[in-house]
Amino acid sequence: MSEQHLATEPHVVIVGAGFGGLAAAKALAGSSVQVTIIDSNNYHLFVPLLYQVATAALSPADIAEPIRHILAPYPNIRVVMGRVTGVDIGAKRVHLAEGDAIAYDRLIIATGSTSSYFGHDDWAPHAPALKSIEEARAIRTRVLEAFERAEWTQDAAERRRQMTIVVVGGGPTGVEMAGSIAELARHALARDFRRIDPAAARVILVEAGPRLLTAFPEALASYAQRSLERLGVTVTTGVPVEAIDGRGVTMGGRLVQAATVIWGAGVRASPAASWLGISTDRSGRIPVAADLSVAGVPDVYALGDTALCRDASGQPLPGLAQVAQQQGTHLGRALRENLTSGTVLPPFVFRNRGNAAIVGRHAAIFDFGRGRRLKGFVAWLLWAAVHVVLLVDFAQRSRVTLQWLWRYLTYRRGARLITAPAQSTSVRG
Amino acid sequence: MSEQHLATEPHVVIVGAGFGGLAAAKALAGSSVQVTIIDSNNYHLFVPLLYQVATAALSPADIAEPIRHILAPYPNIRVVMGRVTGVDIGAKRVHLAEGDAIAYDRLIIATGSTSSYFGHDDWAPHAPALKSIEEARAIRTRVLEAFERAEWTQDAAERRRQMTIVVVGGGPTGVEMAGSIAELARHALARDFRRIDPAAARVILVEAGPRLLTAFPEALASYAQRSLERLGVTVTTGVPVEAIDGRGVTMGGRLVQAATVIWGAGVRASPAASWLGISTDRSGRIPVAADLSVAGVPDVYALGDTALCRDASGQPLPGLAQVAQQQGTHLGRALRENLTSGTVLPPFVFRNRGNAAIVGRHAAIFDFGRGRRLKGFVAWLLWAAVHVVLLVDFAQRSRVTLQWLWRYLTYRRGARLITAPAQSTSVRG
Repeated sequence: MSEQHLATEPHVVIVGAGFGGLAAAKALAGSSVQVTIIDSNNYHLFVPLLYQVATAALSPADIAEPIRHILAPYPNIRVVMGRVTGVDIGAKRVHLAEGDAIAYDRLIIATGSTSSYFGHDDWAPHAPALKSIEEARAIRTRVLEAFERAEWTQDAAERRRQMTIVVVGGGPTGVEMAGSIAELARHALARDFRRIDPAAARVILVEAGPRLLTAFPEALASYAQRSLERLGVTVTTGVPVEAIDGRGVTMGGRLVQAATVIWGAGVRASPAASWLGISTDRSGRIPVAADLSVAGVPDVYALGDTALCRDASGQPLPGLAQVAQQQGTHLGRALRENLTSGTVLPPFVFRNRGNAAIVGRHAAIFDFGRGRRLKGFVAWLLWAAVHVVLLVDFAQRSRVTLQWLWRYLTYRRGARLITAPAQSTSVRG
Repeated sequence: MSEQHLATEPHVVIVGAGFGGLAAAKALAGSSVQVTIIDSNNYHLFVPLLYQVATAALSPADIAEPIRHILAPYPNIRVVMGRVTGVDIGAKRVHLAEGDAIAYDRLIIATGSTSSYFGHDDWAPHAPALKSIEEARAIRTRVLEAFERAEWTQDAAERRRQMTIVVVGGGPTGVEMAGSIAELARHALARDFRRIDPAAARVILVEAGPRLLTAFPEALASYAQRSLERLGVTVTTGVPVEAIDGRGVTMGGRLVQAATVIWGAGVRASPAASWLGISTDRSGRIPVAADLSVAGVPDVYALGDTALCRDASGQPLPGLAQVAQQQGTHLGRALRENLTSGTVLPPFVFRNRGNAAIVGRHAAIFDFGRGRRLKGFVAWLLWAAVHVVLLVDFAQRSRVTLQWLWRYLTYRRGARLITAPAQSTSVRG
């Protein structure tokens, strides 16, 4: 084991280059603080658009940017591609699977979340989730292969099974997946087959709770449901999934035969809490104080999906990119002040910039809190504009914008490739 | 086993949707002939640009287009995604791994070529070739991971090994790969690392024969070699590779330690000849008559890389996309006439439209035969223009054009993602 860091400046180590970790690094850019950011991937992934990779609208490279490239302008930031295996909180070192250790003065845990099957990990091979590029590619392969098999088979029941897609979970991921698959079948694939009519595919969205999108006001959720139904999606609420296997999904005591099942129901925090040896909430999140410090672990902070951070009213903040990003920026700035001037860390205050969900190509819902809302095509345009700005901001490029315009004008899906082995998906974390 | 074809019109079955198969299908489009085209992938791959995927310049979806989409406008053409396991030449049926059989009146074998390690299949895991999207992704992952490890390691010898890339084979593939990797290191990665200088990477191109690009005139090949050397590539000719293992490449009795080895040395024909039970040349090619029919096998034709077709002087035609494409168009038209009017199949005559190789971003060589040549930046522009036209022709889109312009203006590589498991590459066929 070698010790890699020898600088005399204070050293902040960030684990995870998602929205939170990257924002923290950028807030520390150009300061006298040394920064090391560690991620097991070499790219930052724009997760909110991952469903568009899974439904063949975008390529992985459209929504992923090398971390090194994003941070290349900042000489005080070092990027390490590595897998963290543990933290020695006494010696203040992060251990990597690569066999090295990195000493820190301050440590930021920004490791995000993974899929959770609520104890049913045997469902995972039959119902891939949507957390990584590999999973998105596997879903794309499954959906496209199902249409190929439907076209090929002579058996009407098997054709029906191949053309049935069940999306489990009525949150934003499930809603966006169901809408996007319905559009793929209705528009992009419509003319390509000879025997089957892809537009006749059954897309079923299953939610165990009483309604979709519980994080949104009821009026917006109903609008989203109506929009999905107009796209041909069957929405089933109040029916919990009892089993998922190679045949399909059992719910309400009934087996729905489906060749493709997509899991959008549950997430849990990354297993970072185990590195610190601390107890978590039921979702695996690390409880943090108002300044995002981890209680009882000196000089360690957590943010984003892996942190349990409560607002002034005691409500846990939701697992949203904007929460992680604001926390990262806040903590980066706070540590910069603290390490250079000795300032006390101020508490984090979340500012809701609007929570969105997309229902197909023309409709979205936005909730800005305190009763301010937007829905429909204007909301979609706003969502698209915001995401283009966010993407251009992180990658300084306009490629995705061009792709979108192209897709918008032509109803095309440019990335309809069956390349990933559909069976190789596994749950991570 | 079910019989899927019931039409009364003559039925042409095409195996393989590469340049040859696709051209044959298009030549039969809109006729009274029924056409079925079978491919194990759902996409047509623009193989000449595959090296740009391997070097992170393009995404897989930029050079691959769903076969169904290309052929959607033609109601007489059916697309089957399936893997052919054999041909019953007596009963005139093609057998598929999917458990079905397809009857044909005429059968076109257009299954292309695979990599060949000249009997050293144990080299394959250490030296991936460049024939498929999966292999291109694996090479991209290897190259990018090597720079990550070089940045991370404290050991100077190991750093040197990680920053050494050996490309085996001095044909167009090897030349294009070596040039593109050198540019990736020199430009796209130049600023992204802190400890290493990617521009100091050693890219070694190894050719066993006396010179590069033996299919080209010597003057053009020397120009290509000088251009590569200007990009920083070390060109080694006349030295055969003796071994490839986890340490690197042994050649001329000396081990060159290299973390990345890329195989561009050999191809052999697809194993389609074994379906027909006929003997082949040493490269596995099916000998065909001037009209592309397979001797002794009624109503079966072969073209492209998997066929051994001789020109008027008795020379075998080279394994080029333009040969396959011209053969496909010729055979499709000939069969259309033959099946509708009983015309005899005319012999195929190859028209050389220019054989090109690319050396980096600004230089190319073109050989039009009979002493007509072009080299340098103008040749590169011509090559780019030709390929944009070919791509737009097959996919009716301008996305790749935009990508190229973008890359050209910014020296960027948009697809630098480490996603494929680098060890999973295998030889196919």
